[in-house]
Amino acid sequence: MLRIVKMIFVLLVFIGLNCGPAISAEQANNDALPSWNEGAAKKSIFDFVARVTREGSPDYVKPEERIATFDNDGTLWAEQPMYFQIIFAMDRVKALAPKHPDWKTKQPFMAVLDNDTKILAALGEKGFLKIIAATHAGLTAEEFNKIVAEWIATARHPRFNRVYTELVYQPMLELLRFMRANGFRTFVVSGGGVEFMRVFTDRIYGIPPEQIVGSSGVMRYQLRPDGKPVLLKESQIEFVDDGPGKPVGINRFIGRRPIFAFGNSDGDQQMLEWTAAGTGARFMGLVHHTDAEREWAYDRKSYVGRLDKALDEANRRGWTVTSMKTDWKRIFPFEQ
Amino acid sequence: MLRIVKMIFVLLVFIGLNCGPAISAEQANNDALPSWNEGAAKKSIFDFVARVTREGSPDYVKPEERIATFDNDGTLWAEQPMYFQIIFAMDRVKALAPKHPDWKTKQPFMAVLDNDTKILAALGEKGFLKIIAATHAGLTAEEFNKIVAEWIATARHPRFNRVYTELVYQPMLELLRFMRANGFRTFVVSGGGVEFMRVFTDRIYGIPPEQIVGSSGVMRYQLRPDGKPVLLKESQIEFVDDGPGKPVGINRFIGRRPIFAFGNSDGDQQMLEWTAAGTGARFMGLVHHTDAEREWAYDRKSYVGRLDKALDEANRRGWTVTSMKTDWKRIFPFEQ
Repeated sequence: MLRIVKMIFVLLVFIGLNCGPAISAEQANNDALPSWNEGAAKKSIFDFVARVTREGSPDYVKPEERIATFDNDGTLWAEQPMYFQIIFAMDRVKALAPKHPDWKTKQPFMAVLDNDTKILAALGEKGFLKIIAATHAGLTAEEFNKIVAEWIATARHPRFNRVYTELVYQPMLELLRFMRANGFRTFVVSGGGVEFMRVFTDRIYGIPPEQIVGSSGVMRYQLRPDGKPVLLKESQIEFVDDGPGKPVGINRFIGRRPIFAFGNSDGDQQMLEWTAAGTGARFMGLVHHTDAEREWAYDRKSYVGRLDKALDEANRRGWTVTSMKTDWKRIFPFEQ
Repeated sequence: MLRIVKMIFVLLVFIGLNCGPAISAEQANNDALPSWNEGAAKKSIFDFVARVTREGSPDYVKPEERIATFDNDGTLWAEQPMYFQIIFAMDRVKALAPKHPDWKTKQPFMAVLDNDTKILAALGEKGFLKIIAATHAGLTAEEFNKIVAEWIATARHPRFNRVYTELVYQPMLELLRFMRANGFRTFVVSGGGVEFMRVFTDRIYGIPPEQIVGSSGVMRYQLRPDGKPVLLKESQIEFVDDGPGKPVGINRFIGRRPIFAFGNSDGDQQMLEWTAAGTGARFMGLVHHTDAEREWAYDRKSYVGRLDKALDEANRRGWTVTSMKTDWKRIFPFEQ
């Protein structure tokens, strides 16, 4: 008799180990977002996920259609005092400057070498594209990855003195995990360079390379004299995955319309509109940077991550606006 | 006592239903490719998959890195007498002709309306791009999908008098399933239009839209006056996913290098080279169209799906060349 009880016990353990316990969605979701304060934002997330995952619900969505897209800069990690990829490119200018003596007197390089952010801002996107072209073009995909990997492991944020990958938002890490636990596939859809992001997004967000959508430059396939093929970065921009480019990028890469999208700036407005325009239950969310103490406070007038028109639209249409100050208990993982 | 035995039985059934039986890789692979004759091609596939999936093997590859890419035209489905998407575009010209009386005297439309394939061939890629532009531009993504869905459900192949989706290769359908059963993710990497393919690739190959890489035209996001956003197809080509474009497309969309790639023409050569150039175990395969009776026989001199340089390279480097005539027991699913 004892043997049979033991056997049943072993079988039960086996079931537990191999199949996972049969938990209800409610139990699984319990405390899935511990860094979110109780409030409308947290509630709207829980409500939406319950609606689309409950079998038999009129809003039920099959797992393969559970696509959740997230902007990166300002949504999953910080973007002040400047988009981190711009800081990376500026660091590249400084590293390469000894080989380019002409840069000392030539914009936009001069502004970078002088740390003159005002002039840089005035040079705008054109200046930035010149920097990208001068520092990225001619590298193979592998060389570029290596340079990014080295930078991301060592460069430190000027205010927090931590590596940039520590400036991810703890509540959003919990949200990514929560969505995946509910059968969603999580995608990054960012204006940032797709190859820049892929170096670290798997490690820091648990999002694999094939689920990263971003901007890209033209690449050229080349057979080296030794027969080894390489992909060479060229200087022209191929695709800008920002603003109206985001629905285009989503359509191109994913080929399905998200049912859940989270952003933080006017550059995300079209992604949210595109998400909202599908049939069935939809979730549109914005991170509002309202906490100058723990992070930064900026919106309508900011040069980086401006949130103006999209904020009006969110208020008008009842999208979820998450205030960092009041909705987030904790912002960065390193906070106590 | 009987109750306890019953309980154990119920538990065992529960385990069976929820966990699936613990089959070894060898058992699962048994007869996984019934439409392939025994021979070098079939053996090379089994050997490769066994090497990379056996835990503890020096060639073991983690599931997330098991990327298998397949060309479409001539590799997964037929491509004669012409790429099926060209036939689609020609049918569009005919359908739209009443609204464009000038097409009767204007190339390349005139050649299409006269069914003059010789002139069409002479007009080449440029002529085809004009046809694509004239028939696709101005459509929204949704409208285009609907037109493709209708065509693919009704248009019939001139030789076999069957809808085009019946002209898939049974041995390749088995191969796709076999790879997925061994933890691979299967991707289509084709010169065909990504949106054209996505209409039917999930249904016929079991490959979801986000795993289709293809050529694309420029799309523009537009808010309609009623506030509804649409994606509009424009007339410019954005990206050609063929030849040297295939490694670029793979890098852009997937962000990982395949360890297994299958093609059938010189347009796949660079994808195979790129696959071969990675470290660790690799599989490169070509379908060789050698069966004029059951399908078609063509290679070095064919206008469609030319296989010349890639065949030389395959022979020189020991890639797997699959002869339709000798390696495939059955070609199309509809054969008895």
